[in-house]
Amino acid sequence: MRHGPLKLKAQLLCGDSIAFGPGKADLLDAIDAHGSISAAGRALGMSYRRTWLLVDEMNRCWQDRLVATGRGGGGGARLTDAGRKVLAAYRALEAAIDAAVESTAAFERLGQGLRDAPLPPGTEPAARRGAA
Amino acid sequence: MRHGPLKLKAQLLCGDSIAFGPGKADLLDAIDAHGSISAAGRALGMSYRRTWLLVDEMNRCWQDRLVATGRGGGGGARLTDAGRKVLAAYRALEAAIDAAVESTAAFERLGQGLRDAPLPPGTEPAARRGAA
Repeated sequence: MRHGPLKLKAQLLCGDSIAFGPGKADLLDAIDAHGSISAAGRALGMSYRRTWLLVDEMNRCWQDRLVATGRGGGGGARLTDAGRKVLAAYRALEAAIDAAVESTAAFERLGQGLRDAPLPPGTEPAARRGAA
Repeated sequence: MRHGPLKLKAQLLCGDSIAFGPGKADLLDAIDAHGSISAAGRALGMSYRRTWLLVDEMNRCWQDRLVATGRGGGGGARLTDAGRKVLAAYRALEAAIDAAVESTAAFERLGQGLRDAPLPPGTEPAARRGAA
């Protein structure tokens, strides 16, 4: 989620694994659109191995797998009912967060005084002066 | 920001630099509490070099620096007015996001079916079946 200079990230953790997040949400959308893990990966510019590992990590984090694949070789892939529910809930959560950010005065205040680009390293006088 | 298994991160970008985020907010709090960059770093378990680099990156991203340090060696450090304003706006934004998350039904729906810990790799049958 981007709001001008503000970048927001929502991740759902399962132990040390990432059960869901922005990349996995986009991957589910792509699998739904393309009907296979390899085509989804290509559409997102990811290697097949990387795409497959993301699907595997997701599936191991939920009681019901989010992506189902056919038996044997080139069977295609599809979202399960659980996959559709998690994806919809995640997008709804993103929308609620987006609405909260846009409606809070703090967001506008936070952007005030922000430069378009940082000064080069070593040009900020105050921070250069020895240990404090 | 944590809500059970949900981890949220809000970062303010300035070009390729991170002008502000959760780590820098905690660092400003620590500088405010301890009155020096080195003591703040120690309190947060960071090296002096790492702490100093974070302060320098922050200061270069804003029209007015967020942390002021004394002239010469061990002069101490303090938040500027700009630093206090940015920190307060960031905490207010976090609070608005927290409230939105807690009040949306999507948050509760998203957690349903999530395991406490992932299954071990290779144990999820559907994702193991070849290319799809």
